[in-house]
Amino acid sequence: MDNRPIGIFDSGVGGLTVASRVMSQLPNEKIVYFGDTARVPYGSKSKETVTKFAKQDVRFLLSKNVKAIIIACNTVSSNSLEELKKMFAIPIFGVVRPGAKEAAKITKNSKIGVIATSATVRSDAYKKEILKIKPNAEVFSKACPLFVPLAEEGWADEEITRLTAEKYISELLEKGIDTMVMGCTHYPLLKNCIKKVVGDKIVLVDPAYETSLVAKQYLTKNDMLRDSQKEPKHEFYVSDTTETFDKICYEALHKKYETKEINIESF
Amino acid sequence: MDNRPIGIFDSGVGGLTVASRVMSQLPNEKIVYFGDTARVPYGSKSKETVTKFAKQDVRFLLSKNVKAIIIACNTVSSNSLEELKKMFAIPIFGVVRPGAKEAAKITKNSKIGVIATSATVRSDAYKKEILKIKPNAEVFSKACPLFVPLAEEGWADEEITRLTAEKYISELLEKGIDTMVMGCTHYPLLKNCIKKVVGDKIVLVDPAYETSLVAKQYLTKNDMLRDSQKEPKHEFYVSDTTETFDKICYEALHKKYETKEINIESF
Repeated sequence: MDNRPIGIFDSGVGGLTVASRVMSQLPNEKIVYFGDTARVPYGSKSKETVTKFAKQDVRFLLSKNVKAIIIACNTVSSNSLEELKKMFAIPIFGVVRPGAKEAAKITKNSKIGVIATSATVRSDAYKKEILKIKPNAEVFSKACPLFVPLAEEGWADEEITRLTAEKYISELLEKGIDTMVMGCTHYPLLKNCIKKVVGDKIVLVDPAYETSLVAKQYLTKNDMLRDSQKEPKHEFYVSDTTETFDKICYEALHKKYETKEINIESF
Repeated sequence: MDNRPIGIFDSGVGGLTVASRVMSQLPNEKIVYFGDTARVPYGSKSKETVTKFAKQDVRFLLSKNVKAIIIACNTVSSNSLEELKKMFAIPIFGVVRPGAKEAAKITKNSKIGVIATSATVRSDAYKKEILKIKPNAEVFSKACPLFVPLAEEGWADEEITRLTAEKYISELLEKGIDTMVMGCTHYPLLKNCIKKVVGDKIVLVDPAYETSLVAKQYLTKNDMLRDSQKEPKHEFYVSDTTETFDKICYEALHKKYETKEINIESF
């Protein structure tokens, strides 16, 4: 048993959808969440900058004495996971491998689409992971830079969002995919519009759920679960205090949480 | 005379539209430009974070021995100009006052619209400056968070951008404005779509031009112009190297420039 908390970090608010899954799967665990709201987004930035930011994020969580870290951010999972694992002696889980595994399991025609940020697409991480499991798969990726600001604007059900989704996703549909990974934690917030565009025949994969299962499995197997009957008191930290965080926190977790602001550049 | 360069900074690429105006007005001046591409955007962040970032940006430009600083970023000009002026003993020019002055001069019915980032709108800076000059004016502001990502995506002439502009701007049109300030340096990149929405009767104000005139006047009056017949060698610095910067740099300045990456967090 290990009563220390689980650390989760993201470039901003998107990772709250992952935190929500982890809380459902591991209701007895305490979560320390960090959202880098001062430097969000990561998905339009270079691998070097993303990795530099991610190291600071990990160092902050370590200062909170966490027992394991879940990288909720697809951009960090795609670009920096290996380097972080080499650098820090703590179990670190990304969202890409679990998402890729699930997509490879689901697809019937071996044609898989991935929608993600520019940095995630550029890394080719989903493709590499899917091909490890299913070497004959065809993987088609598309960067969707407007999805994050559309989700943060709260335009989940607007015609503009549907048109944008159509513009981005149509080329994947032309390839005949039967499975599509939502490779950015913000995208499930736009699920309605995305579903309208892809129709019923294409299965959408949200890596957050699979990631929470992987973390649960690891902690259970290694006897690292929290052993306390007291309700865990989650902690939320941000690098900038903004209204968007509170709004999406409530949408994702159906509860109001207090956030504390920290200076991430000092880590 | 003063042969040191002029510093210009922005949260990212948008300020290149200001740099372009300054180069036209002051073709003999050397420019040192900094774009904080690692932490862009500023417009969705808090006043405190914007001011903290802006101080680092100014310190970096001071390390390049500039004689004056132009804040190309509307968000910084709106939220942090007074604090920066108090803190640093160097002439610093924002874009808000010149833009407000021009709008107040142009309007005939004293009804002025301002489109800008969330942080600029929240600061009420344009309204305050316009009312100083024209106390009877009515100022209507609207935050347009999707305009920056649309401009960076290069969707300047897309139907989606026109629909988005319509959604944002229609409430300003209903107020009967005859003048509208483009209060974010990215917005002139979407001028075609914005013009389609506002029509011919509303005059669009781009503060960049007015700001370059103010800077020229100040340097001339204070005998601070560069006195050299050699063509100035401009310098461009960024905090993250991305393709977007190069693309928009070419669009705004019609020339390729080399950029150097610096670690802004160390300033």
